[in-house]
Formats: sequence, structure tokens, C-alpha cells
Amino acid sequence: MTSKSFVFCGLLADQDEATWVARRDKASAFLPLAEGRLSLAHTVVVPNDHAVGIHDASAESLQAVVLLAQELARAMETSIGARGVNILNASGPDSDQSVPHLHVHVFPRWKGNGLDTLPPTFSGHSLDNGWLSEVRAAMTP
Amino acid sequence: MTSKSFVFCGLLADQDEATWVARRDKASAFLPLAEGRLSLAHTVVVPNDHAVGIHDASAESLQAVVLLAQELARAMETSIGARGVNILNASGPDSDQSVPHLHVHVFPRWKGNGLDTLPPTFSGHSLDNGWLSEVRAAMTP
Repeated sequence: MTSKSFVFCGLLADQDEATWVARRDKASAFLPLAEGRLSLAHTVVVPNDHAVGIHDASAESLQAVVLLAQELARAMETSIGARGVNILNASGPDSDQSVPHLHVHVFPRWKGNGLDTLPPTFSGHSLDNGWLSEVRAAMTP
Repeated sequence: MTSKSFVFCGLLADQDEATWVARRDKASAFLPLAEGRLSLAHTVVVPNDHAVGIHDASAESLQAVVLLAQELARAMETSIGARGVNILNASGPDSDQSVPHLHVHVFPRWKGNGLDTLPPTFSGHSLDNGWLSEVRAAMTP
């Protein structure tokens, strides 16, 4: 399912312009808009079928996205000497997800390039003592 | 392939203690050590077969890891009310990867929980003008 009402679906349908890095049957990679780039070659990978986030994506879409991210990581090493990548996804309404179409950021990394990996902050959210049992019980199967 | 010389392989072989959230045929999830946790329920997903990072992991391992991360995201929403997750991986020697066994962080997110999503920094690494063509050419196929 694709929907022209979602901005990334518009890109995928070639209704809007994007700088493509790769287009595959089930996933595509493009450069984010200039104001959203944290480094040169910062790339975003999306499934071609619409999903809002990791919660609702099909297994097929997730597999295609992760394999394209792998392709990118390997290509960034051989082509532009990035001996590492950071891969980041935000999914869900309280995750700071910017666009409601599943997208995975791939940041190339170079020694001393000044990009931090982990967030510099800690969560202040508290939970009842039984939280671990609750999470385990909610896992399927 | 597993190797007892890698700390996560020691965990997976039950030689070391871990707080497991889920164990599946091809991937497992556990809580990081207390000093590495950025939030309650911060969970790490690893493939059961050893891989250093996304670059060298098998397609089967990557699929298992991403599907277990999806399971976790869904369970975190239904069990502990996390309406979102951030998912993060660092792979490769210049990526700030902490342990040389592929591992994906899953951070539950709650509204206003104080955890940042994107790194607060920008990469200062420069590239020759032809970098995009070079990355595209290195993609397979």
C-alpha cells in the first residue's frame, strides 16, 4: 500500500524530487533535505510500501530496509572511507519521529568526525516495579 | 558461528549472567548493564550467530534482529505504555561501537521523557565533490 498523502510516498511515486542513492524492489534510499542532514552522505532508507513505523511494517519491508542499510554501510566504507555507520530509527508518536513513514537514518562515520552516537540525555520516565515481567509477558510468542 | 571470546557470545552461551527479555532461535534481547542504560526498559537485541556489525551480518541474522526489535516495540507499547521507540545501532571501528558483536539498542519513549533522538552534533568530515556518484557506484547491484 502506498498513499500519495504521505510525503515519502510522494517521493517514491516520483511526484516529488529526491536525490536517490538507490532504488530497490522493496526499499529505497535517498538524501534527506539539506537542512536535515547531520553529515555529508547522511542517507535515509524507506520501505516502498507505506508503513508508519516499525510497529506496523511488514516483515518483508523490514527485511528490505535492513538489507539496503547493510548495502549502504558497505558502500560507504568502500567508496568514501567511512569505517562505520550509525543507524537510527524513531517510530511512534512519542519518539520524535519527524515524518510518519518508516525511515531509517544511516550516518557514515569517520574517526574524529564529531558526530555523537548515543543521545547525551537520560530518560526520567519511571515505571512500576513489575515492568520487566510485563514487557516479557507482552512479547509474542 | 559463535565465539566464547566475545562477551555477548558468552552471554548467549549462558556462561555469563544477563537479564533476558526474550530469547528466539536467531536473536535475543536483554537489558544492558545498569551503567549503560539510558532509560528503564532500554533493551539490546543481538543475533545469536556472531557478527561484528551490520557490515558482516548474514541476511538471516539481520532479519531476526529487526523482527525481534519490532516485537519489543509492540510489547513496550502494550505493556508499559511507551508510544514509541528509538532504535540505534553503531557498526564499525569509527562508529563508537562499544562491543564488537552486532547489537541494536531499543529505547522506549514516552512523551516528555527527556531522551533526545538525534545526536546534537554535526559531522565535520568533508568529502570530494564526487562522493554521491562514488557511493552509488559502490552499491550492489
